[in-house]
Amino acid sequence: MGEERNLAIGVDLGGTNIKGGVVNLQGQVLRRMSLETLSQEGPGRVLDQIAHLVQELKGREKIRGVGMGCPGLVEPTLGIVRDPPNLKGWKEVNVKGNLEDRLRLKVEVANDVNAAALGELHFGAGRGMNDFICITLGTGVGGGLILDGKLFTGRRGAAGEIGHMPVDIFGPRCRCGNSGCLERYVGAEYIVTRAQEKLRDNPRSLLSSLGKDVKLTPKLIAEAAQRGDGLAKEVFRETGEIVGALLSGVVNLLNLELIIVGGGVARAGELIFGPMRKALEERTMNGEIQRVRIVTTLLGEDAGLIGAASLILRP
Amino acid sequence: MGEERNLAIGVDLGGTNIKGGVVNLQGQVLRRMSLETLSQEGPGRVLDQIAHLVQELKGREKIRGVGMGCPGLVEPTLGIVRDPPNLKGWKEVNVKGNLEDRLRLKVEVANDVNAAALGELHFGAGRGMNDFICITLGTGVGGGLILDGKLFTGRRGAAGEIGHMPVDIFGPRCRCGNSGCLERYVGAEYIVTRAQEKLRDNPRSLLSSLGKDVKLTPKLIAEAAQRGDGLAKEVFRETGEIVGALLSGVVNLLNLELIIVGGGVARAGELIFGPMRKALEERTMNGEIQRVRIVTTLLGEDAGLIGAASLILRP
Repeated sequence: MGEERNLAIGVDLGGTNIKGGVVNLQGQVLRRMSLETLSQEGPGRVLDQIAHLVQELKGREKIRGVGMGCPGLVEPTLGIVRDPPNLKGWKEVNVKGNLEDRLRLKVEVANDVNAAALGELHFGAGRGMNDFICITLGTGVGGGLILDGKLFTGRRGAAGEIGHMPVDIFGPRCRCGNSGCLERYVGAEYIVTRAQEKLRDNPRSLLSSLGKDVKLTPKLIAEAAQRGDGLAKEVFRETGEIVGALLSGVVNLLNLELIIVGGGVARAGELIFGPMRKALEERTMNGEIQRVRIVTTLLGEDAGLIGAASLILRP
Repeated sequence: MGEERNLAIGVDLGGTNIKGGVVNLQGQVLRRMSLETLSQEGPGRVLDQIAHLVQELKGREKIRGVGMGCPGLVEPTLGIVRDPPNLKGWKEVNVKGNLEDRLRLKVEVANDVNAAALGELHFGAGRGMNDFICITLGTGVGGGLILDGKLFTGRRGAAGEIGHMPVDIFGPRCRCGNSGCLERYVGAEYIVTRAQEKLRDNPRSLLSSLGKDVKLTPKLIAEAAQRGDGLAKEVFRETGEIVGALLSGVVNLLNLELIIVGGGVARAGELIFGPMRKALEERTMNGEIQRVRIVTTLLGEDAGLIGAASLILRP
């Protein structure tokens, strides 16, 4: 058996781009390719794109199979994808069946955040760890759980939705229908809303000087915070405290050893990690026994792609 | 091999009583014994009591070993018990090592609520289920997790503390040091406090007619509710809603199939189960895919004892 038997293709399907790569047993991406997702044209067209991307990446090489990370609810083993946000017409699509038929390769499918958690487990910040959560802070707030050294998806593949755990069950309505969810407090748009509210009372903030025409983003707020702006720092401090407080409940439930944080909002770095770590330490039970490390993702934006490939490489 | 090889002794250590029983492979309790816990006399004396109880129950029978359910934090595999509430001087006790030395039998130790979850898995309401939580509503609020068909304790044995997950991170201080924990809202004493607060504004409630000298308990409130008292019903409706809302977050995180509820407060039955079920259905994501059953414990007060024996019978 040559090197070719130890390669897989990982695909990270998003609403904007489809990213693919040939990945080896060490988790290295040997070749890459990316396409703009034709998300408005329905699942048939997007599956065509994925098949094309896989064929191009594969060339004449022998590969073990294709691992896919998809948004939405992914039924494990069956590889059926349900209701992915930002993909039009994907009510219920048998991604595994469809791609296996046309590619004549083994295909495995996982939720994209779960794939990222697997990537971190095998090749990233979670190596050697048994129990951790990989949380992404961005427009949405997602999570992937590794328990007893394996991806935990639950029977129907729906596990990991830390973004829809309550920060405050009496809190404001979330788009999921529930009230006071984590995402409703720290999703990117809500961070911006909180900054805007504070701006009304603090017209001297650096953020005001950007002018009324600039669309505020977590990135701009982080830049202002890094330049010392009090209001911007306060926004991230609150965000970190809320995430840390919620995570302490998850640690009390699951006795996790590690928390890996990624996503755009996490790029604010210590501005958010500091308060998050403090809230977590103050609020978690059992002191030393439950001491938890909280770190940033090691694979970054490649976590999903590499983790998807690991569905094949480390079954 | 005769029947004697298929017996184990289960022990349920509590702050008030030590209950023991000889349990067979079908989860039946063949003989029982109970002692008042000499909890004020320290761990040495209590371990003496347990050894005595095991010897008495065993008689000349051949048994496979002894399974123990203990309050507090139990380190899995090592069988070390830390900081059990209501047991004086138990900072850190090697229960497994101590009992194995003097009994010359195999001893396995689990947290008492975890043992109850195991009992329900093997012989109770959780038979055939893979992913569920067993939650006890009483003075404290505890939980035991079965994931992928096995007890999930986490690396250091601290998992399952659903009572110390946040209902509202901005809420009132809990005895654990955290804020707004589930136990802080629905632990027995807080249910009573809420009833007392409501009584001030509703002097015509049945509960008022009990007189000022009667100490209010969840049991008395449940009795008043069953007799149609509006205030008492409202107390349980709120309690059920809070528990259901918190559980929806746990289901979103773990995609559980089943929730088993036990403990004194759960004896209020449909008064609390109705609102709990409603809140859970309304708040959980993904509709049909995550439909969860919520049931009462089948083994009741024997769950801990039988589950402890199953540590030996179903290792």
